[in-house]
Amino acid sequence: MRAEAELLCTGSELVSARVNLYSPLFAARLRGLGVKLRAERSLRDDRGLIARSIREAMASCPLVLTCGGLGPTFDDLTRQAAAAALGLRLRVSADCEAELRRRYSLEKLPPNMADQALILEGARTLPNRNGTAFGQVIKRGGRMLVLLPGPLREWEPMFGDGLAEEISSFFGVKPGTVLSARFKAAGLREVQAEKLLKPVLRRFRGADFTILAGADEIEFAFTVSGLTPALAARRLAAVKKAARRALGGAVYSETGESRQQALGRLLRARGATLALAESCTGGLASKLMTDEAGSSDIFLGGITAYSNASKTRLLGVGPALLGRSGAVSAECAAAMAGGARRVFGSDYAGAVTGIAGPAGGTPEKPAGTVFFGISGPRGTSSHRALFRGTREHIRLCSANRLLDLLSKIIE
Amino acid sequence: MRAEAELLCTGSELVSARVNLYSPLFAARLRGLGVKLRAERSLRDDRGLIARSIREAMASCPLVLTCGGLGPTFDDLTRQAAAAALGLRLRVSADCEAELRRRYSLEKLPPNMADQALILEGARTLPNRNGTAFGQVIKRGGRMLVLLPGPLREWEPMFGDGLAEEISSFFGVKPGTVLSARFKAAGLREVQAEKLLKPVLRRFRGADFTILAGADEIEFAFTVSGLTPALAARRLAAVKKAARRALGGAVYSETGESRQQALGRLLRARGATLALAESCTGGLASKLMTDEAGSSDIFLGGITAYSNASKTRLLGVGPALLGRSGAVSAECAAAMAGGARRVFGSDYAGAVTGIAGPAGGTPEKPAGTVFFGISGPRGTSSHRALFRGTREHIRLCSANRLLDLLSKIIE
Repeated sequence: MRAEAELLCTGSELVSARVNLYSPLFAARLRGLGVKLRAERSLRDDRGLIARSIREAMASCPLVLTCGGLGPTFDDLTRQAAAAALGLRLRVSADCEAELRRRYSLEKLPPNMADQALILEGARTLPNRNGTAFGQVIKRGGRMLVLLPGPLREWEPMFGDGLAEEISSFFGVKPGTVLSARFKAAGLREVQAEKLLKPVLRRFRGADFTILAGADEIEFAFTVSGLTPALAARRLAAVKKAARRALGGAVYSETGESRQQALGRLLRARGATLALAESCTGGLASKLMTDEAGSSDIFLGGITAYSNASKTRLLGVGPALLGRSGAVSAECAAAMAGGARRVFGSDYAGAVTGIAGPAGGTPEKPAGTVFFGISGPRGTSSHRALFRGTREHIRLCSANRLLDLLSKIIE
Repeated sequence: MRAEAELLCTGSELVSARVNLYSPLFAARLRGLGVKLRAERSLRDDRGLIARSIREAMASCPLVLTCGGLGPTFDDLTRQAAAAALGLRLRVSADCEAELRRRYSLEKLPPNMADQALILEGARTLPNRNGTAFGQVIKRGGRMLVLLPGPLREWEPMFGDGLAEEISSFFGVKPGTVLSARFKAAGLREVQAEKLLKPVLRRFRGADFTILAGADEIEFAFTVSGLTPALAARRLAAVKKAARRALGGAVYSETGESRQQALGRLLRARGATLALAESCTGGLASKLMTDEAGSSDIFLGGITAYSNASKTRLLGVGPALLGRSGAVSAECAAAMAGGARRVFGSDYAGAVTGIAGPAGGTPEKPAGTVFFGISGPRGTSSHRALFRGTREHIRLCSANRLLDLLSKIIE
């Protein structure tokens, strides 16, 4: 039996107005168990449609997970749909009912709340740490159906609370014999990463690899398995070592840490502070640096100098320099970084100026041309890059590259 | 026949690492034609799985659209899967082949490129303005199957190039008899918007309404139909008028314009400039103001003052004020705005300071408490708000509210 799964997400908003964010999250969770997600469906709240979809998925896939539709409101239809799909009855679980009465602090539950105690006959319930909708697991005809509540903070802990083990044992995987990890590497495009990683992929044929392109970065996720936990661990270590070597100094995280977290960690370790000066990124790099709560101990602030006058006025970039080299130049980037370091009184400062596009490019400096300035205790340097893509993508690449250059210099 | 559709998106990345962004885009496109999207599937590149999914969807849904898998590489399998699902042959279209030779400037096409000229027997092709993969439309047994290429810039124009009309005529909808519009309204939560719009929803029962909650804003989309284009237009105008009245002054866009675009338009109309001072949003408001190319004519820049010292040093916020009222206060927000206006020499300035959370709240100022300062030719004002949700959500609400307050005062 192939270790494969299908995911069914219910909610009319998913097919009208909202992006479904769950597919990569479930894929990663399942990958860690050695199970591949092969299909995901987003379904409007429609009992017949949900029942038909469960039936279709279970006809060919060993593991089917549903997400959503287990709450107390009229559009929560997954329990009934699953019962219809499997030809099973729903029964009130006395344990679940008692738990719900306790949760809601009610002597008697109103009908809609009591519905949450309806369990498919033969199903095992999964306790919900952060909500009132129980998960359900049922096995029929060599298939496994798992009903999960919609909110991430409700379904996610269920994996840790026994579901992961149940899936592993269903597929006959011994605990600890499937292991995964992911690297993040800066400054690489997908095609470059593929080339660099080719020998690794060839050498470890049995492993499962995913390369995901981001903004001036790639993520490289891999899953290995072994007959015993020790063999799996050894194999994982071997893949890690080979990947680290293949990607060279580009790897900035082996733990899922973001670039700004990596930079924050380096600054904290040195008791150093940072300031930023931005032009084309318009404040995005500063926004990234303040994504985490508590960043004020290392990040003093930033200046978005979107006009030449403000570059001069706030950052002290000389009008002569601007006249000679232009605002999009290595000289201007270096002067902006020096200005930010002086104005904020920080240990390090980074600056970025470029042409985010789509218009504004020249033959010498096409759209996507970006200059960086880095100023620190040991002096000031400048760097140039050329990014491709939409304005939004070029701006995100630029902000990421700035943080990466800072990390490299501080390191 | 119900005007409903299912969407099948192919690509292994969609079930491993990437979020599928297409469902709301297709839903909006189809809504404008009076067609409801009821389900979306993301499928890995697997010919059997894609074929089975097409068959399943067509068994119960009148319109099925596939997106992706029409390119020249080995993992482009949708043509073959559709042929298998329908039991039809693929034939080389001489016209398509000639077009491909022209596009690639080749005398003879290599096999993988020539594959793109394979068309289902009986299908009509859809020209591709921005790529080499042709779309295909085929009708069988009262169903319509549409094969579209994956990239947005390739499939999107196909709707305007005849596909929209073809779908309308398939469902028997006369051109101009289904019309839709969308309002964006600031400062409302979903539940408030639902309450305000209840009378509108009740009055226009036949119309299709969607309320989507955003960050300190909601979007209200509606579709109406009429027997003739004139009747449909009259009905749309009536819904617009009623919705405008129900939502009061909260509507800031009836064209899909973003808040920053609306604010930019107001500033341009007055020949005025803007500067920003940010604390808790960390540069996000400045980033939003520079999302559009060409914003430098109205936006001079911003200062992210993330420490008290930088609020004093860069924005001239007095240490006495900070000691008395604290950095998260109406007084500080007003002083930051005044400082930004002075430092940048702008006509208007906006400032934001608050507790983005999750930690840092007090009983008087819980996490989510945010103060705004607005400074302009007529003086300075301050405002207070309380937002709920994650740090990210509170920050986006705060930046949006700042732009909204600026728009209101400039207006």
